[in-house]
Amino acid sequence: APAAINYCSLMQEDEYHKLANSTISELLEKLEEYGDSVDIDGYDVDYGNEVLTLKLGDLGTYVINKQSPNRQIWMSSPVSGPSRFDWDQSAEAWIYRRTKQNLIKVLETELEKLCEKPINLS
Amino acid sequence: APAAINYCSLMQEDEYHKLANSTISELLEKLEEYGDSVDIDGYDVDYGNEVLTLKLGDLGTYVINKQSPNRQIWMSSPVSGPSRFDWDQSAEAWIYRRTKQNLIKVLETELEKLCEKPINLS
Repeated sequence: APAAINYCSLMQEDEYHKLANSTISELLEKLEEYGDSVDIDGYDVDYGNEVLTLKLGDLGTYVINKQSPNRQIWMSSPVSGPSRFDWDQSAEAWIYRRTKQNLIKVLETELEKLCEKPINLS
Repeated sequence: APAAINYCSLMQEDEYHKLANSTISELLEKLEEYGDSVDIDGYDVDYGNEVLTLKLGDLGTYVINKQSPNRQIWMSSPVSGPSRFDWDQSAEAWIYRRTKQNLIKVLETELEKLCEKPINLS
């Protein structure tokens, strides 16, 4: 039988989970590495219950989590506040519709400024 | 010596942590109880790394976390999106400045609608 084609505007749920999980687990790994290279009191990255938390002591806390019904990744940033990212098929990236910003790029820019050290999260 | 008086507009950090921790741990307890009384596939409440996560399966995920530098509690809601609550001394409650809404009340209202069962979180 031919493969089913999805005509819905919403991404298939399993595809969403695959993409979001891979993004979040890659972030976890890169942020753990980054933590070893910077000297920030209270730097702590943790993944639990599908929520990624990055604590930067007095600099604040990042929370990144899946919001499955919307097929989004949400981020709370101590610098830029809250934002919600949709998967952009053509950019192959999580993009905040309102600002056209890329989740990974936003994090890179903010963390470089906060921690005063270059970072590559992709 | 007389007790020091805090003239800063920002709450003392230890006072903030005491208030925020007590709110979050009370929420955790009440939400666990509530979970036993409702029949929502995937209902799961969890506290780790100072982040409270309430998963409601297909209905979405709530994330509630401290943002210490601002002395705030941040919430990501699948219903109302993101909001940030400051402690209001006179109301003795966490209030979202923009809407004057109370964290506990917002959660009660949304969860009652989502889970179709009354809830008392205070």
